[in-house]
Amino acid sequence: METMSDETQDWLKSEDSRDYFELLRFPTVGADPAHLRDCVQAATWLRKWLKGIGAEAELVLPKQSLSDASGTAKQTPVPVVFGEIRRFEGAHTALVYGHYDVQPEDPVSEWETPPFEPTVKDDRVYCRGAQDDKGQFFAFLCGVRELCASSELRINLKFVLEGQEESGSGSLFRLLEDREFRRRIAADVLLVSDTGAAGGLRPAIVAGLRGVCHFTVKLTGANRDLHSGEYGGVAPNAAQGMAELLASLHNPDGSIAVAGFADGLVPPTDDELAKAEESAPTVAECRDDIGCEPVGGERGKSIAQRRSFQPTIEINGIHSGYGGPGSKTVIPCEAIGKLSIRLVPGQNPRRAFEAVKAHLSERCPQGMELAFPEDSGLSAAVRLPLASPIFRLAEDVLAEMDSRGPVFVWDGASIPVVSALREATCAAPLLVGWGQPENRIHSPNESYSIRQFLLAKDWAKRIISALPQ
Amino acid sequence: METMSDETQDWLKSEDSRDYFELLRFPTVGADPAHLRDCVQAATWLRKWLKGIGAEAELVLPKQSLSDASGTAKQTPVPVVFGEIRRFEGAHTALVYGHYDVQPEDPVSEWETPPFEPTVKDDRVYCRGAQDDKGQFFAFLCGVRELCASSELRINLKFVLEGQEESGSGSLFRLLEDREFRRRIAADVLLVSDTGAAGGLRPAIVAGLRGVCHFTVKLTGANRDLHSGEYGGVAPNAAQGMAELLASLHNPDGSIAVAGFADGLVPPTDDELAKAEESAPTVAECRDDIGCEPVGGERGKSIAQRRSFQPTIEINGIHSGYGGPGSKTVIPCEAIGKLSIRLVPGQNPRRAFEAVKAHLSERCPQGMELAFPEDSGLSAAVRLPLASPIFRLAEDVLAEMDSRGPVFVWDGASIPVVSALREATCAAPLLVGWGQPENRIHSPNESYSIRQFLLAKDWAKRIISALPQ
Repeated sequence: METMSDETQDWLKSEDSRDYFELLRFPTVGADPAHLRDCVQAATWLRKWLKGIGAEAELVLPKQSLSDASGTAKQTPVPVVFGEIRRFEGAHTALVYGHYDVQPEDPVSEWETPPFEPTVKDDRVYCRGAQDDKGQFFAFLCGVRELCASSELRINLKFVLEGQEESGSGSLFRLLEDREFRRRIAADVLLVSDTGAAGGLRPAIVAGLRGVCHFTVKLTGANRDLHSGEYGGVAPNAAQGMAELLASLHNPDGSIAVAGFADGLVPPTDDELAKAEESAPTVAECRDDIGCEPVGGERGKSIAQRRSFQPTIEINGIHSGYGGPGSKTVIPCEAIGKLSIRLVPGQNPRRAFEAVKAHLSERCPQGMELAFPEDSGLSAAVRLPLASPIFRLAEDVLAEMDSRGPVFVWDGASIPVVSALREATCAAPLLVGWGQPENRIHSPNESYSIRQFLLAKDWAKRIISALPQ
Repeated sequence: METMSDETQDWLKSEDSRDYFELLRFPTVGADPAHLRDCVQAATWLRKWLKGIGAEAELVLPKQSLSDASGTAKQTPVPVVFGEIRRFEGAHTALVYGHYDVQPEDPVSEWETPPFEPTVKDDRVYCRGAQDDKGQFFAFLCGVRELCASSELRINLKFVLEGQEESGSGSLFRLLEDREFRRRIAADVLLVSDTGAAGGLRPAIVAGLRGVCHFTVKLTGANRDLHSGEYGGVAPNAAQGMAELLASLHNPDGSIAVAGFADGLVPPTDDELAKAEESAPTVAECRDDIGCEPVGGERGKSIAQRRSFQPTIEINGIHSGYGGPGSKTVIPCEAIGKLSIRLVPGQNPRRAFEAVKAHLSERCPQGMELAFPEDSGLSAAVRLPLASPIFRLAEDVLAEMDSRGPVFVWDGASIPVVSALREATCAAPLLVGWGQPENRIHSPNESYSIRQFLLAKDWAKRIISALPQ
């Protein structure tokens, strides 16, 4: 018999959970053009929801640009939901950012519940997007709804909810090129709910994020897959070539072997490193979480160093030749590599990406051709000053919520729009979220606990109430 | 407007083409259990066909063995068609071997015609199996049919047509363990139509075949695919680990880096090497055929050396992580490699395979687990003495068919059952076939020309008539 806490039972009767479940059911895989319709439906639903709490709201799309006209645009634009609650002329304005797109649900066979049907079990909601980022930003919006319904809201609010965060924020980046759009989203504070809390749900303030660029590498050999007997020892093998290329990216000690990649890297200050070590998981905690030794990255560096202050080159996928049952003895003529790089402050994103491309191009195996048919564009790392006023304010609010007070973290992940929104709006970013490793974001069986949802909602009410008028 | 030669037009009206097309339409992918039913239907069709030309024929399957009972058998047995035409007590007997299974048809999107619907274009038949091996052995059987219908057949014939050649000949190998089955297939000559002719359809006699073993390598890291930002630099990456493992199999000069793999290798005699060089394609011919530089195998060795007298380790496939549109920034927790090794005389197949496994196991990346969940079993290489009487006879017959006379080839491919059938029957193997590189066997758009079909049929009639009574 399933046990369910009183808290969960109450929450399940609320309009918060009803609306949240509706939002989760849209399979908003923003990276996949086949899901564009679902994204538009989710955006339309969010617009209606924002209007319901008293905001003006609309769907916005970037204007057709010259590059579109010439056919070079790569991504189908997914609408951004823009909303605004403007009650107090001249008062401070907070911009709330979230993303309603989610990661692809595959491998579907590993889900224990349907990936797009929210299922409550053990006081948590299982669904793709339950946490990342529908759960996190929608719980925050539920807090906003309560403030709006009361008389406690004393500042202005703006909302930017995008649908392509997981695939490079294409629409939003193009909107940010538009001066009029930048004017509309101008704000004093940028509130982002897309990050994690520390262990045991201790509050965490993000003081840094890695930058990111993801791209596709394609290697082509013969004009067709060839018989591995007739042509073995004669034709070059694209699968082997790709293995050699990708293996060359790292040294045996796990460090990155790409010349020029880490040029300019700014190491953390002693204070930053000490605070990061404090909030980092131990080796044993990592092992329990991931089910194997946490031996990624460069040997001899701590987990905090490797995750927060070191760049990475990760292979997100390799595909070449046969992979079905039994065997097919071919020499594959083509191989695809899906890669991502994570960047830290000081690295020039363009130069780092070019260094990886040059490294691979120089090593292109004889007889084969190398191409980079797709990339996400570039986002730089962010590192925020520990002494800023907004951090002081957030520390106080979080200490009220949790007597342990917050930790500061330098997140290994990336929210490419954060640095772009910060530049475009001149707002001070404040990233506080309630994610936990057991939420398994980007993996099958993603979940978000009712506890996390309620914390995110409470945080929204408290921080918005605490912000200066 | 499509041109069609008179030869093709006549052939299209024949019972040969009608029957051949029926056989081609069975999607007999023997490696895939989902196609077992199609294989059984094709075998049943062949049994009926053999009975139609006056043979006794039946489907045979290996007996349930002890290992089946204990659940360790790996492959679903696919029936072997056994047939016999026994007209002359005490006369010589030729055993005709062929295989009715075919390679998987993927990638389906690259086929210009339906993969299992024979389509005639430019005097050739396009279909999976059009050549390998349905076209080659069935054209031979059509020659047998004509001999049977006339009074020219003066020897006894046996037929073994199997359905698992492309995936290790499981059923036939197990049948060969059975003394009664070995007695039934005893013969003086083993006639195999599953090899190629030289350039310009010059006849070729196979004097050697490489051995083969194919197997699957599986590397496992974390307990799930992980977010490449949160865990990048922390968790080991199975895609990267697999790339490093597979890259380690070769040296930068293309030679094999696995210690012990080539132990015992017997190099060709001067006569063999000279004859092999004579029939090998030039670099320019290879380049035209495969569409890129033929730079596979070890630098500094000729194409004939690399293809005929050197072993290989080929990657037939790698699959790990995301491969769809856009991106998914994961650290894959699992990677699959599909590999095959080709062996030459002197190599002990078991020891060569164990050397590869040991090489990979020793290099298993830290934090990950390596497994070999599937293998095909082992087949040794074959090298036949150039001075044998059956080769003299075949040379004469082929010189009558083509004034250029035959070349001798040491084929880079493998027909694992040839050495097994040779041992089981004590028959002298004679491998003459009419394949050409443009037939694209194992690739999309496989074809066999009407010319090739008619040559294979003519060869059947002539060699069977020439064999001693």
